[in-house]
Order: sequence, then C-alpha cells, then structure tokens
Amino acid sequence: MNQLVTDFNEYRQRMNTLILSKNNLVMKRLWNLDTNTYEAGAIDTKTKEMLGLVASMVLRCDDCIKYHLGKCFELGISTEQLYEIFSVANIVGGSIVIPHTRRAAEYWEALHDKHQ
Amino acid sequence: MNQLVTDFNEYRQRMNTLILSKNNLVMKRLWNLDTNTYEAGAIDTKTKEMLGLVASMVLRCDDCIKYHLGKCFELGISTEQLYEIFSVANIVGGSIVIPHTRRAAEYWEALHDKHQ
Amino acid sequence: MNQLVTDFNEYRQRMNTLILSKNNLVMKRLWNLDTNTYEAGAIDTKTKEMLGLVASMVLRCDDCIKYHLGKCFELGISTEQLYEIFSVANIVGGSIVIPHTRRAAEYWEALHDKHQ
Amino acid sequence: MNQLVTDFNEYRQRMNTLILSKNNLVMKRLWNLDTNTYEAGAIDTKTKEMLGLVASMVLRCDDCIKYHLGKCFELGISTEQLYEIFSVANIVGGSIVIPHTRRAAEYWEALHDKHQ
Amino acid sequence: MNQLVTDFNEYRQRMNTLILSKNNLVMKRLWNLDTNTYEAGAIDTKTKEMLGLVASMVLRCDDCIKYHLGKCFELGISTEQLYEIFSVANIVGGSIVIPHTRRAAEYWEALHDKHQ
Amino acid sequence: MNQLVTDFNEYRQRMNTLILSKNNLVMKRLWNLDTNTYEAGAIDTKTKEMLGLVASMVLRCDDCIKYHLGKCFELGISTEQLYEIFSVANIVGGSIVIPHTRRAAEYWEALHDKHQ
Repeated sequence: MNQLVTDFNEYRQRMNTLILSKNNLVMKRLWNLDTNTYEAGAIDTKTKEMLGLVASMVLRCDDCIKYHLGKCFELGISTEQLYEIFSVANIVGGSIVIPHTRRAAEYWEALHDKHQ
Repeated sequence: MNQLVTDFNEYRQRMNTLILSKNNLVMKRLWNLDTNTYEAGAIDTKTKEMLGLVASMVLRCDDCIKYHLGKCFELGISTEQLYEIFSVANIVGGSIVIPHTRRAAEYWEALHDKHQ
Repeated sequence: MNQLVTDFNEYRQRMNTLILSKNNLVMKRLWNLDTNTYEAGAIDTKTKEMLGLVASMVLRCDDCIKYHLGKCFELGISTEQLYEIFSVANIVGGSIVIPHTRRAAEYWEALHDKHQ
Repeated sequence: MNQLVTDFNEYRQRMNTLILSKNNLVMKRLWNLDTNTYEAGAIDTKTKEMLGLVASMVLRCDDCIKYHLGKCFELGISTEQLYEIFSVANIVGGSIVIPHTRRAAEYWEALHDKHQ
Repeated sequence: MNQLVTDFNEYRQRMNTLILSKNNLVMKRLWNLDTNTYEAGAIDTKTKEMLGLVASMVLRCDDCIKYHLGKCFELGISTEQLYEIFSVANIVGGSIVIPHTRRAAEYWEALHDKHQ
Repeated sequence: MNQLVTDFNEYRQRMNTLILSKNNLVMKRLWNLDTNTYEAGAIDTKTKEMLGLVASMVLRCDDCIKYHLGKCFELGISTEQLYEIFSVANIVGGSIVIPHTRRAAEYWEALHDKHQ
C-alpha cells in the first residue's frame, strides 16, 4: 500500500510547484499562512493537526484528509486516537463521511506500511 | 460494466471490515443505527431508499449514491422513477449535481448488466 | 405559533414578486421548472415532496425545509412519517442537521396550529 | 429598508473590531489577504466583486452576499447584470439558493433606498 | 449579552423536548450516541470539544458552534486557544467562515458576561 | 497530458447521451436552461464563464471545473487571469479548495498541450 503514500506526495509536490511557478501573490501568501496556522501556539501542533483532520473529514476532502493523516502519523497520534477523531467526524458530518473514512482508514494503514 | 459493481462492493466490504476491526464503539453503533434508519416503519423501505438516494445526490457523495442505487435496484425501483429522483436532486442541488448524475446513470446500467 | 407560517409565506411571496418583476428569463424558467419537478409522474407528489424535504434538510436550508413542510402537511403526511424523514436526514447529514430539525419540528407544530 | 444596510454594516464593524482586538496573527493576515484578493490585477475590481458575489451565493452565506452586494453597488453594477449573476448562482447551486436570492434581492433594493 | 446565552439554551431545550416526545427511536439513539462521542477516551474531553467546535465552524452551523462554545467555556479553554481554533476554521473553510466567526466571537463574550 | 482533455470530453458526452435517452423532461429542460445561462446578456460570455468557474471551484466539483476551464480556454482567458480566479476561489472557499486547484492547474496545462 506504500504506493498510495508515494503517489499522493509526488502529485501534490509536482502540482504545488506548477502553481507557485505562476507567481500569483495571493496564492503564495495564502499557502504560507496555511503553514503558519498549524504551528505551535496556545494549542500544540498535535492538537492542531487533529483539528485540521476533523475539519477536512466533515468537509469531505480526501486529499486534505491524506495530508493531515500524514502529519498526525509523524506526530505520533495513536490508532485509537485516530478512530476517535473519525467518530467525531462521522457524528458531526453524518453517514456521507463514511466513504471518506474508508479511504482514510486505508491511507492510515499505508502510512504504517511505508515506514516499516 | 459489471466490474464497476463488483469493485465498489469489494472495496466497501474490505474497508468496513478494517474499520470495525479497530473496535471504536461510536463507529460501530453509528453503523448499526444507519442500518436501522432504512428499515420499514411509517414509511416503507422503498421510499426510504429513495430518500437516502436523493440526500446522497444533493450532498454529492458518489459512493453513497452507488450504495443506495444498489438498494433501489434490489427493491425494484424502475428507471423512470429513478430519473425522477435524479430530476429532484438536480433541481434542488443545481448543475453541480450533473457529474454525479452521470456516474449514477452509468452505475445504474452496470447494475442491470450484472444481473442479466 | 400561527405567526411563523404567515410570516414565512408573506415574505416569500413578496420577494418572489420582486424578483420576477426584474424579468430575468433564466430565473423565471428555472422557477417554472422547479414547480414541474414535483408534479406527479412515475413517482407520486407525496413521495416527491418527501424527497424535496429530505434534500432540503441535508443541505440545511431552513426556508426550503419550511416550504416542503407546508406541502407535506397539505398532502397529509403523518407526524410519524415526518419524523422518519427527519431520522434519514439526521443519519445522512449528521448532527449539524439537528438545529434545522429543531426549527422544522417547531414549524410543523405551527402548521397544525394554523389549521385548527 | 435603509435600516437593513446600516444594521449589517454596524454589526460587521463592531465584531471585526472585537476579533482583531484579540491579536490572533493568522486571523489578521488572512483578513488583509482577503482585501488584497479583490484588488485590480489582470482582472478588474468589478469582475472580481462579481466573482466574490457568485461564490458567496452558491455557498449560501447571507452576510458574505450582503458584503459583495454593497461593493457591486458602489462599483456601479446594474440591476440587469446583478440578476444575471443571480441566474448563474441559481443554475449552479440549485433551488436551495433561492431563499438567499430573496434576501439578496431585498438587500439590493435597500442599498438603492439608502442612497436616494 | 447574557440574553444571547439564555435564549439559545432555552429554545434548544424546548425543541429537544418536543422532538423526543415524538418517540422516534433513531433520533433518540442518535442523540445518545452524539453525547457518547464527546466522552473522554484516548482523546480527552477538552480536545474533543475543540474538534466538535472546528467541525461546526467549517460546516457553518451557528447553533452547533454555540453549543460547543458553551462546552469549551465550561472546560476552561482560554480565549487565546479559542482564537487559534478560529484561525484553523478560517484557513480550512475560507472567508465564508468569517460571518460565523463574528457570531462566535460575540457569543464567547456573552458566555463570560453570563458568569460574571 | 492531452489524454486528460479527451477522456473528460468523451466520458461526459457518452453519459449525457445516456441520460438524455431516458427522456426525463425536467432533466432535458434543466440542461437547456444551463446552456442559456451562459449566453451573452448584460454580462458578456467571458465573464459568465469566469463566474461559472469560480462557483464550481468553491463548490469543489472537479468535472464542473474542467468544463468551465475548457470554455475559459476557448474564450481566450489568460493564465494570469485564471490564477486570479483561483485566488478568489481559494480565499472564499479556504484550503479545502487547494486539491481542486491542483487538478485545475493540471487540466489548464493539458488544454494548452492539446491545442499546440
């Protein structure tokens, strides 16, 4: 399942490079700000990534979910914690979140596979 | 087009098994409740599946649409009825529902193909 | 609670008149089409209004909900049936549908009050 | 109808002041960036405000709609043009946009009333 | 501003009582499950309420936001932490979240006012 | 990248033919109306396609985005203008629009590649 993680990161990186090459200032500044948002402050980075993940899940954005799953994995969030985030997302957002939860569950396994 | 139905069901089943194996109690109970919701009551199952389908269409969830299309097919909803559900979904949800209607129309044909 | 129904209908009517007075052809034709969509066909009007209601609930549009509640009331949908539509909307759309369900429940009582 | 415009602007201003007083850097920078986005560039400000309006309509955000209506009014967009933006928003977003169109139509009249 | 909190809680309580009086089993069980979701587990209640809040903000549900703000207040989340949750919600969900952030900021002050 | 454009158009055309073959009158009339909406009026076609594009982006509909990108390309919208539309969509809709912006950027290059 390793391929899933590699493909996601490679496409994301390639397209980000393309977009930034067009020199749209608003896009550049928005992306910088996006990075700043998840930096440690009154709330630690781990909790902020959890916030980013649950927000991405209820808005049903698979790529955003994958990105935050990668960060949650790096920051050492446990599988038990992850599934509690899933449960909040599914209760708030309803059964339409289930298909995204399936793909999130698959990607979470892939992240573990990649690092074995 | 048979493959479309088989692939959907196989992936769905495999990921459901993965998710349930993690023993998150809220997820388990939510999924049970999801099943209960569509059982016959004051409204019959056929109408309830129609409700599930139109809700999935306006929320633009392709996998949810496929699931309810499968149920509608099993319960004997006609193609003429189905396209009237499509028309409600497209009027309420607008032209952004059209791409999902395309994939729904394709899957509906696949369901018939599978059972020939 | 009678006032709730009267206020909704009066504002809706007044603004529809304003909008149509501007003679935008697309708007006019879209509104006609909206009316046609709920006419009896392969699916009866009662079921179509249920479809319109559940779609409005998961998309969380209070005024659309009120409109379809009015139609469901006129067509003799029972309170038990209504709450089964509520249950589908809440399962599919999640807990964010609850506040809209509260206002829908209030309006349903108002509709009964008005006709007593 | 004058009151509608005054109330909107007054509340918006008062709450913006409250939020900025808390000195959250991301919020401050995001709001600056929001302003920059609508400045003239390869696309003129009039068209950009039209873009902001149609985006606010399909996302069904009444306050965002009011804000962009105010800007469109200041920039001299005609009522005929406005209703063509309404028609795009209603076709793309469907009948759930109608209640927001009603409130937008009312606010547009209020803007004219205020400046008489 | 005290009135804002009292009105919200009173209406919410009155409508919940109305809805539960209709004895729809799915609705009852869903609401119980909703309560269970935010109980302490691998993630503490404070973090779970933060997750509920950010999810409600990006989905732009004012009443859901008020409910979770009440919980966050009770659990001792600081204003600085709250505004970092606001910043995540605004970055993920965009400028359409701003009007909801205004009402959230107002309600947060009201919660403090009520308890003085 | 030529293949991306061909695949999109071919699938779209094939499914549109399937859907229209079922003779649902509401669907047919809605699609005609959809075409009328983007015809020149008080607003020119170029601006209308920009409106359709930004609406599709904030609603995060990849196929709708591709369709309007095709039209924008045909009507001679420049890459600099396009990225300003992207910036409005990303500011209004937030970081969840980014993955759709990536696919839009890729498709825009593909459109140029196809016509070389």
